Amino acid sequence: MPQLRKDPIIGRWVIISTERGKRPRDFVVAKEEPSDIDCPFCEGRENETPPEIYAVRRQNTSPNTPGWDLRVVPNMRPLMQIDGYMGRRPQGMFDLMNGIGAHELIIETSRHVANITELDIEQVTCVFDTYVKRMKAMEKDVRIKYALIFKNYGVAAGASPIRHSRSQLIALPVNPKRVKEELAGCKRYYEYKERCIFCDMLRHEIGAQARVIAHSDGFVAFTPYASRFPFEVWVLPEEHSCDFYTLKNTKGLAIIMKAVMDKLSAGLDDPPYNYIIHTAPFRRMTSAGYWKTIDYDYHWHIEITPRLTKIAGFELGSGFYINPTPPEEAAKFLNGLNKERK
Amino acid sequence: MPQLRKDPIIGRWVIISTERGKRPRDFVVAKEEPSDIDCPFCEGRENETPPEIYAVRRQNTSPNTPGWDLRVVPNMRPLMQIDGYMGRRPQGMFDLMNGIGAHELIIETSRHVANITELDIEQVTCVFDTYVKRMKAMEKDVRIKYALIFKNYGVAAGASPIRHSRSQLIALPVNPKRVKEELAGCKRYYEYKERCIFCDMLRHEIGAQARVIAHSDGFVAFTPYASRFPFEVWVLPEEHSCDFYTLKNTKGLAIIMKAVMDKLSAGLDDPPYNYIIHTAPFRRMTSAGYWKTIDYDYHWHIEITPRLTKIAGFELGSGFYINPTPPEEAAKFLNGLNKERK
Repeated sequence: MPQLRKDPIIGRWVIISTERGKRPRDFVVAKEEPSDIDCPFCEGRENETPPEIYAVRRQNTSPNTPGWDLRVVPNMRPLMQIDGYMGRRPQGMFDLMNGIGAHELIIETSRHVANITELDIEQVTCVFDTYVKRMKAMEKDVRIKYALIFKNYGVAAGASPIRHSRSQLIALPVNPKRVKEELAGCKRYYEYKERCIFCDMLRHEIGAQARVIAHSDGFVAFTPYASRFPFEVWVLPEEHSCDFYTLKNTKGLAIIMKAVMDKLSAGLDDPPYNYIIHTAPFRRMTSAGYWKTIDYDYHWHIEITPRLTKIAGFELGSGFYINPTPPEEAAKFLNGLNKERK
Repeated sequence: MPQLRKDPIIGRWVIISTERGKRPRDFVVAKEEPSDIDCPFCEGRENETPPEIYAVRRQNTSPNTPGWDLRVVPNMRPLMQIDGYMGRRPQGMFDLMNGIGAHELIIETSRHVANITELDIEQVTCVFDTYVKRMKAMEKDVRIKYALIFKNYGVAAGASPIRHSRSQLIALPVNPKRVKEELAGCKRYYEYKERCIFCDMLRHEIGAQARVIAHSDGFVAFTPYASRFPFEVWVLPEEHSCDFYTLKNTKGLAIIMKAVMDKLSAGLDDPPYNYIIHTAPFRRMTSAGYWKTIDYDYHWHIEITPRLTKIAGFELGSGFYINPTPPEEAAKFLNGLNKERK
């Protein structure tokens, strides 16, 4: 019998189609050829990108020269523009504003490697440190309401064919729809329970153990109950926190993220994927009232979605997803891998 | 300067990235090979599908034998199951129910042709008549809250490689999230203006003419102001109507849909696409109060989305779309085609 499961945060129903139950080896994703070495993101090619905004460099090296471990540069084809006025205005019955914001590329390593699994823990920590720093910088610009940090890995996940490990930051003068929905869901739950829904979900998952795939250094990774995609994984800090940019334990996050990515890569044969950091908007009213130090509006987390299935018209038009792999089976498979290798 | 445009109905912001401005010929979509003729949907292969639920047949032919113009059969791998109890229940902190509903395949022609553009107006009318009839049948089942009718054309749009023109109906015991959002948006607008937002949008588009691509027989087709996808097209009846299944002028709809599809196919070189019928839930409270005969909750329409761009992590995680083709340019291009051919 197929199941309908409801995401408790935003109220979306997902079909978990056990009849179509797909095992990991059933997903066939075209392998990507290693890209040519003509890569503008490699060390020594610094003049082929716009000048760097931020870099982690070895001592006595100059900006935009070799000698770096990580660089942040403006996206070469920016979706948003940093200079100008916002000009929010009507256009007939519609609403329009200028695309003021930022669009940055985080080049995660000077070496020509494609995936986060090929970086060591120190380098992955450096990536998350950079995310925190760039998000803090965005928060200071009063025009910016939200900064989205995400990674596209593989052409099927929307990446360009140049296989050099990187992620993107898009800073926006508006809050994304999905984030608003999550905030509204958290608020509804808080008004009813006076607790954070993500904190409750964490406790539930740790208790049930059916979907947990990693738990270390104050972070938990699990396949969510109403997963939209096969092998979808969420990573949350155990300690309640609304804002990603207040994170101090970036090493703990690097450790769990690399563990999850290693499992997905080993189990699903290096699949294309996206991850996206979900954090609270920079400027918001809190719903928690007099608790000034903890507000229960939100709980930042990272959503990792391997791209093993095509998204059909059904999903796009209805907001209704079909997932052929129950998250419990996905977790069991990923945890089994772990044991085999031990 | 890139633009941020807001969808007035559900409040989603879309980036119209004029900097990346893509012309129609810039979209490269892999052409699909004609599929083998070993097709279970062709005339004479009736025993290869489950028994028909409904068919348009020539006189003196028996069910599940040749002699038909259109057949409706249960999907061979159904996502929802018609028999059983709904069993809505908790699972820890979560919500679960059985996948009770229906999943039907509408085989639109007995000939082995792939696209709606290859059917004549009478046959397309027959398809829409069937949609109306099947939706009416679903409405009678009190367990069913919503019926989604949609088409996936081309592998990139989620179709199987068998290129035989067909669409699907999925009947659900819950309302899809997107429909709930649209209803909420209509209600907000109605409370403020005491008018239907879709009716206002129609008037605006007919007045502005910048985005209209067809207008005939009581229907209007236009590229919406905050299009998520390049060459996205919406088709609406001019006369206010919540429920698709009350449609009488199916021929008028067939004429405009075929005109739109012909333009998309000619202009974009037979692109993969999805269309989905957006209609009001079967069972709802009306917001229009004492106007019993007209309720302003909703305005049914069809959303057509050519699949020319990959949906990246950014879109999935944020509900924020990037569209490289302004809808005005899309409309101009599609209307230009028309003139060239005249």
